[in-house]
Amino acid sequence: METMNQLPKSYITECGWLRAGDPTDDLVISSRIRLARNIEGIPFSQWASSTDLKRIAEQTRKAVSNSDHLHNPDFYAMEELEPLDRYFLAERNMISRELAKSGIERYVAISPDQTSSVMINEEDHLRIQVLMAGSNLSRVWTQIDAVDNELEDHLTYAFSNQFGYLTACPTNVGTGIRCSVMVHLPALVISRRIDKVFSAVSQMGVAVRGFAGEGSEISGNLFQISNQWTLGISEKETIEKIEKLLEHILGQERKAQEKLFEENRCQIEDRVWRAYATLRYAKVISSNEAIELFSSIRLGLNLGILNKPRYESLNEMILKVRPAHLQKFAERAFTAAERDEFRADLIRRWIMNGDS
Amino acid sequence: METMNQLPKSYITECGWLRAGDPTDDLVISSRIRLARNIEGIPFSQWASSTDLKRIAEQTRKAVSNSDHLHNPDFYAMEELEPLDRYFLAERNMISRELAKSGIERYVAISPDQTSSVMINEEDHLRIQVLMAGSNLSRVWTQIDAVDNELEDHLTYAFSNQFGYLTACPTNVGTGIRCSVMVHLPALVISRRIDKVFSAVSQMGVAVRGFAGEGSEISGNLFQISNQWTLGISEKETIEKIEKLLEHILGQERKAQEKLFEENRCQIEDRVWRAYATLRYAKVISSNEAIELFSSIRLGLNLGILNKPRYESLNEMILKVRPAHLQKFAERAFTAAERDEFRADLIRRWIMNGDS
Repeated sequence: METMNQLPKSYITECGWLRAGDPTDDLVISSRIRLARNIEGIPFSQWASSTDLKRIAEQTRKAVSNSDHLHNPDFYAMEELEPLDRYFLAERNMISRELAKSGIERYVAISPDQTSSVMINEEDHLRIQVLMAGSNLSRVWTQIDAVDNELEDHLTYAFSNQFGYLTACPTNVGTGIRCSVMVHLPALVISRRIDKVFSAVSQMGVAVRGFAGEGSEISGNLFQISNQWTLGISEKETIEKIEKLLEHILGQERKAQEKLFEENRCQIEDRVWRAYATLRYAKVISSNEAIELFSSIRLGLNLGILNKPRYESLNEMILKVRPAHLQKFAERAFTAAERDEFRADLIRRWIMNGDS
Repeated sequence: METMNQLPKSYITECGWLRAGDPTDDLVISSRIRLARNIEGIPFSQWASSTDLKRIAEQTRKAVSNSDHLHNPDFYAMEELEPLDRYFLAERNMISRELAKSGIERYVAISPDQTSSVMINEEDHLRIQVLMAGSNLSRVWTQIDAVDNELEDHLTYAFSNQFGYLTACPTNVGTGIRCSVMVHLPALVISRRIDKVFSAVSQMGVAVRGFAGEGSEISGNLFQISNQWTLGISEKETIEKIEKLLEHILGQERKAQEKLFEENRCQIEDRVWRAYATLRYAKVISSNEAIELFSSIRLGLNLGILNKPRYESLNEMILKVRPAHLQKFAERAFTAAERDEFRADLIRRWIMNGDS
């Protein structure tokens, strides 16, 4: 398994994990699980010496290359990747923003289909992640559990019989699992019922975040719903609980959409068609505005106001309009102004092609 | 000359004065002159008894019906017109908002081509007005001067050899003339140079107002430029002065447009195309938003970004989207929400027809 110092060209056009799972889901963009793992007898990354970090990397790399379920992954050293490539991977949710900042002895292994990755020397020695489109936590769990078991054949994880897996941050101790589902909830936002729904679920130990993850602003009515508990509850129970809450939230959103369309049909049609119009005719579009407009387009698809683009194509555009993606696609660096023009151009061609 | 109690149907589709003059002017929407006149020996309207008001109306009506230059005008009693019809006339700038509020013995005579009108018992006994599209003060003056002379054959105006025409408000004493030119100055607004330009011209006795006249908010980058002096300066000098200042302001606007397009081409194209997109696809548009969007369309025509609609058609739409016009056109009363939907519909059909 060679260490690669640049991303394959195919990454630019193919957002692998967006094609796995269920890309046609109307309300759920993606399902993700990550496991936090550490190797017994070596300090957590933050306190580890460079020799320690090297040992972690060597052991993990060996384990990773032997994993059947990772299908001979690509292996990248953060230090050897261009900053643009690192930010590209972060935008695509294959690595964390933290890892994208680079640093010594930091790596990621990515399966060829882009659904599975193992970050090395992030907050924990290993952060295993599996990501798929749509609402698919069970299938994601099957994959990540298999990878985790394979890695454990070659690594001795730090584990306590009392607490479970030991992790750098106490919030992960136990199963070390985080399940995240990215959902689109425009009607709950428009009808101002989102806070009520979220305060109800947060009392059940569920965190809600903006779509770029921890600390990020909410935008485009996209939200990440994830568990806050890792202790005293099994992985399967965690997944079941999240899935049950998800079902509840999606039910609320569907009801809110129906009600909104019944009571404010004209305003909703106006919002959808104005978004379509802007995407089709604007010459300058910021990343944030694009995400907001895509939200209205998705709502238009949900309500049958629009019959294209496909959800899969819309999901891909949410990634493609982001800064690093745009620059990789254009194969050149941009000023901020050029970026907004290029983005508008890309979007216009996409809308005009109907469904690219 | 019968008193009519409803407007002719042709008013709805034909904005007469917008077709007279120069409807193809790129920056000037309209030129208007009004003269304030009072009949000698009768108190100003505000202090006149109902018998006085009746006398004014009778004398003026007779004079008006004898005017060749008014071409057998239509004669309306405010009290007998539906409120909607009165507001329609005010929106079309044929009568003042003050007269549209109705009141006893208030009338207006309107020439069949809608360019000339005489209001009776407004602030002054007579308010004579001529209105044409484009930059046409001289032609407007020729017409209004002819009407004024004809009326004077039948009426004895209150006139002082020292001051000139006597008027209810001291600001009109002298010539009683107000010349107003409605101009569109988007580039001066966008480049934030408008205040500088206006403060320069206001030192020369010129007033600048929003497009609906006195006290109105500025919208759609439309401004009314008019003289503030009526004393110690002849009508022709007044017109020459306004025309000279107008030329200066229009020159500044043209320079600002060129500079803007040179330095921010993409932003300007973006603004124009977004306006086009919204007009084409929105399902709900307020009157104010429409006026703002039309401004961007006009700028697009000025800069050659768009090649339709024609200026004449755009000028007409500025009138047609206003509340009373819309309701006359639909032949029914609207709620505010229905009005915004109907407006969006009207605009969409207009844009799609290319140039209606």
